[in-house]
Amino acid sequence: MQGTQPPTSPPGAYTPTDRTVPTRSADRAAYDKELVHEILDEGYVCHLGYVRDGAPVVLPTLYGRVGERLYLHGSTGSRPLRMTGVADPGLAVCVSVTHVDGLVLARSAFHHSVNYRSVVVHGVARQVTDPEEKRTALDALVDHVVPGRSRDARPANAKELAATAVIRLDLDEVSAKVRTGGVNDEPEDLPLPHWAGVVPVHTVYGTPLAESDLAPGVALPDYLTVL
Amino acid sequence: MQGTQPPTSPPGAYTPTDRTVPTRSADRAAYDKELVHEILDEGYVCHLGYVRDGAPVVLPTLYGRVGERLYLHGSTGSRPLRMTGVADPGLAVCVSVTHVDGLVLARSAFHHSVNYRSVVVHGVARQVTDPEEKRTALDALVDHVVPGRSRDARPANAKELAATAVIRLDLDEVSAKVRTGGVNDEPEDLPLPHWAGVVPVHTVYGTPLAESDLAPGVALPDYLTVL
Repeated sequence: MQGTQPPTSPPGAYTPTDRTVPTRSADRAAYDKELVHEILDEGYVCHLGYVRDGAPVVLPTLYGRVGERLYLHGSTGSRPLRMTGVADPGLAVCVSVTHVDGLVLARSAFHHSVNYRSVVVHGVARQVTDPEEKRTALDALVDHVVPGRSRDARPANAKELAATAVIRLDLDEVSAKVRTGGVNDEPEDLPLPHWAGVVPVHTVYGTPLAESDLAPGVALPDYLTVL
Repeated sequence: MQGTQPPTSPPGAYTPTDRTVPTRSADRAAYDKELVHEILDEGYVCHLGYVRDGAPVVLPTLYGRVGERLYLHGSTGSRPLRMTGVADPGLAVCVSVTHVDGLVLARSAFHHSVNYRSVVVHGVARQVTDPEEKRTALDALVDHVVPGRSRDARPANAKELAATAVIRLDLDEVSAKVRTGGVNDEPEDLPLPHWAGVVPVHTVYGTPLAESDLAPGVALPDYLTVL
């Protein structure tokens, strides 16, 4: 960041803010919306942070994305969900999604790292009260885990809808951070007798394990064979 | 939690507190130290939460464990590390580690879930200033990513040590949360024509990609072939 001008963002990018410009490795930060969406859409578990009694709380939870909005859900009795009640002004949150793509082993301990792609979203989460938006959000949450699944499951009934709280978080103050490539060793370390390189890390799906009491004739759906 | 007695913990377990007893799915919570260590040791990226200007911040970062202590590190210039400076009383943090083991597809949208194992640690992080402890911590951080690696890399020199801040967080207020097993559908949903079951999720390592400029005769080390 140079000079004192407020940061500007190209079309299709989030505007950097004081909170989304990292204090280090600023060259790894990105604000491109397509990249952010791609990272978000590849995951389904985020880490949700909020403040309770002045102290931070970080919990893993599922999420879905619809356009420029994230949806998170939980029991209406759960703490963060209660804290976003309609009557209050919302809950300040930070949501983080991270994918590890590789272990970076340098000749020096100092330059060890991981290749990763992460997204951090800052904002105020609010409860979704509109029934239509709530249904859209719940479908998005299911489809985020397995694309196409929401059309092949019984939708929530009135009792289940009432027991589920959904919160939304607009994608506004957002950054991605990405490390790719190989090892960054110091030139004088290159002759050292240590192996150096990258170990790729992948998430893979095993063979689906069907429940033993499926209704007669129910086969493995196509959307599971392409996972 | 029953009655007004303070919670007691069996040997080998963390004492539950108000912050570590979940408001929902309390049956999934566990305080067993061995289980907590196992979950922590299987990962190397945690999500670190802290409060800045009253708002939560959640960032992915590497960690290592030595006994009942977690170590995190970063540039001395990074925000959370600066906030744990020696002069101040430490930084209230929450550290979360999560492994996803399976996608749980129920016949009803409502009962969709994931199988997972997670650990949440609350506490106050403090900078490590003792040089010996700092070296131990940095070795632990490297060995957490690849066991055995710290003995096969050039240790940090004085300049690198000075540029690296290490913080410690005692494992004291800790809980694990685990979901395993199959689908929990409502009995009346069992005849529905939807596939139900669990899709296992695994993290796997690809073939290590060596740097092109390894010193002559440097081979792939054994500790990488067993990943």
